[in-house]
Amino acid sequence: MQPRYRESGVDIDAANLAMGRIGELVSGTWGSEVLSRVGNFGGLYAMPDGLESPVLVSSVDGVGTKLKVAFMADRHDTVGEDLVNHCINDILVQGAEPLFFLDYIACGKLHPDVIVDIVRGLSKGCRENGCALIGGETAEMPGFYAEGEYDLVGCVVGVVERKRIIDGSSIVPGDSVWAFPSNGLHTNGYSLARKILFEEQGLTVSDTLAGTASTVGEVLLAVHRSYLPEVRSMAGALTVKGLAHITGGGLLENIPRILPDGCAAEIDTTLWKAPPVFEYLEKYGRIERLEMFRVFNMGVGMVCVVGSEDDRTIGTGDYRWKPFRIGTIVPGERDVRLLGID
Amino acid sequence: MQPRYRESGVDIDAANLAMGRIGELVSGTWGSEVLSRVGNFGGLYAMPDGLESPVLVSSVDGVGTKLKVAFMADRHDTVGEDLVNHCINDILVQGAEPLFFLDYIACGKLHPDVIVDIVRGLSKGCRENGCALIGGETAEMPGFYAEGEYDLVGCVVGVVERKRIIDGSSIVPGDSVWAFPSNGLHTNGYSLARKILFEEQGLTVSDTLAGTASTVGEVLLAVHRSYLPEVRSMAGALTVKGLAHITGGGLLENIPRILPDGCAAEIDTTLWKAPPVFEYLEKYGRIERLEMFRVFNMGVGMVCVVGSEDDRTIGTGDYRWKPFRIGTIVPGERDVRLLGID
Repeated sequence: MQPRYRESGVDIDAANLAMGRIGELVSGTWGSEVLSRVGNFGGLYAMPDGLESPVLVSSVDGVGTKLKVAFMADRHDTVGEDLVNHCINDILVQGAEPLFFLDYIACGKLHPDVIVDIVRGLSKGCRENGCALIGGETAEMPGFYAEGEYDLVGCVVGVVERKRIIDGSSIVPGDSVWAFPSNGLHTNGYSLARKILFEEQGLTVSDTLAGTASTVGEVLLAVHRSYLPEVRSMAGALTVKGLAHITGGGLLENIPRILPDGCAAEIDTTLWKAPPVFEYLEKYGRIERLEMFRVFNMGVGMVCVVGSEDDRTIGTGDYRWKPFRIGTIVPGERDVRLLGID
Repeated sequence: MQPRYRESGVDIDAANLAMGRIGELVSGTWGSEVLSRVGNFGGLYAMPDGLESPVLVSSVDGVGTKLKVAFMADRHDTVGEDLVNHCINDILVQGAEPLFFLDYIACGKLHPDVIVDIVRGLSKGCRENGCALIGGETAEMPGFYAEGEYDLVGCVVGVVERKRIIDGSSIVPGDSVWAFPSNGLHTNGYSLARKILFEEQGLTVSDTLAGTASTVGEVLLAVHRSYLPEVRSMAGALTVKGLAHITGGGLLENIPRILPDGCAAEIDTTLWKAPPVFEYLEKYGRIERLEMFRVFNMGVGMVCVVGSEDDRTIGTGDYRWKPFRIGTIVPGERDVRLLGID
């Protein structure tokens, strides 16, 4: 008699094969703080010592429908990096340094090569951010996901000294709003972007995107940036009053998350130029400019609020991606006012 | 002009509505250790003090295709508990007490009532285990999930004093193997169980399951047990040498994860009777008995290894679910030998 479990669509042997191949990728992200072995039920991470009053900061997220672009391009080794960087930015904005990361991959049918590629991206992102990939689950769920598709979820845990938590509470009118540049959509607005590019304009991932020298696939799969080195670089030189990761909801919904009562942000949209993909989407998608700012990051991956006395320091620091000034904190009720929009 | 974002299938307002309603459920799990507000980018949890050498233990998991049964029964307030308890068991087996939990819910179209039900289950599970529901992501991913379906993922972080980590390393031949009873499939083997019950036998969730007084839906949705109180209860009274959470792979694949070199587990399958659902699946699914033990937990939710000198203590302790002895550690190579199988 044949085993019946495989017949029901779940292949334990294929899962075990993939597990073996990813073991090395995963353990390559481990330092001496990691006390676990691959195969442990839970991941073990020795709490760093030397902190006076440590606070754990955690976040969970997915890659969203950017995954659909990865499926179309059959390119699976970048979405893991997107996820790691996205999650790290989410705890970074509260001042936390990442400690470890866990992933969840769910698919209808497990293809070991695809899983290995996904984990390659995850482990690259973790290594580059000094974060241990400490746990993961690969779930084969027949009838849940279409053939060749998967979902990818990540959770990061970091730590910050309690008195160094960044929460925006010291922001006052007169402070400056700076932006670190994104390199594209990062991980937000893909449902709308795909509708415009693929359904309405009939493009494929291998077509060149007008206004760029890159293919649509390359532009859409550009890896979400981690701003960890940028924030570390600032931390020594100036006082970071608030940081906002510009994700779903754009500048309009993410900046208010860090504004204290009595403050608003006035953003002058004429001070920078968004990457060409945003212009393309606005024009060919016939999207109102205000909505562009609600759906997309519009070229801003992270917002940083500093006292105006730090304008010179932040502007002359040493960064991979140089920040630019986009506005000012004004009196108001935790809203964002966009200047330069008709 | 209508906003285009909603037209692409993503409804930010519906998401915001659900967020508002779940806020109270979520913050009801928070103690004074939680420093964050709903809406923060990351969840903030003050590290408990008083530990000499704390080790963080974490795990990520999904509910698997048990979700399909929840969809069929249109019952969404129990799968969250399944997930929390499953994750907590995974870190419990290394001796960790849970600190906080994060969830990820992904769906094709966001139905606020369903999301609220899911979060109700999550927060109930967290409250019962003294764990803070500190973060979550609700992702609307058009074209990813079928109408009315979703995936649900959770991540737990706990802590254990380094010298109290349970890792099975002290297990020696002659030790006793005990079992804490499961109340059904917990969260494993659902693809095969659904195939047998629904496809082959043509049952519905409202039919009574032969050999029980419950419906198929009730039996299949029975909530995965958390053994946290049981393990706490033992910890004060005896030395727990090893704990294995019996998940995918059953007794055959999970017990070896905690066995040191030179040890095997001899399990006498005649010493207990699995709940009726397993008998049904074995008989009507024509599954070989050995495979039953590889796919299902067979009535054992958690395995505990103790020195034989602790047999009396463990057998007479005060538990919600009384453990029973199922076997002995013998010399061997990290394998499991099942006695009483033809």
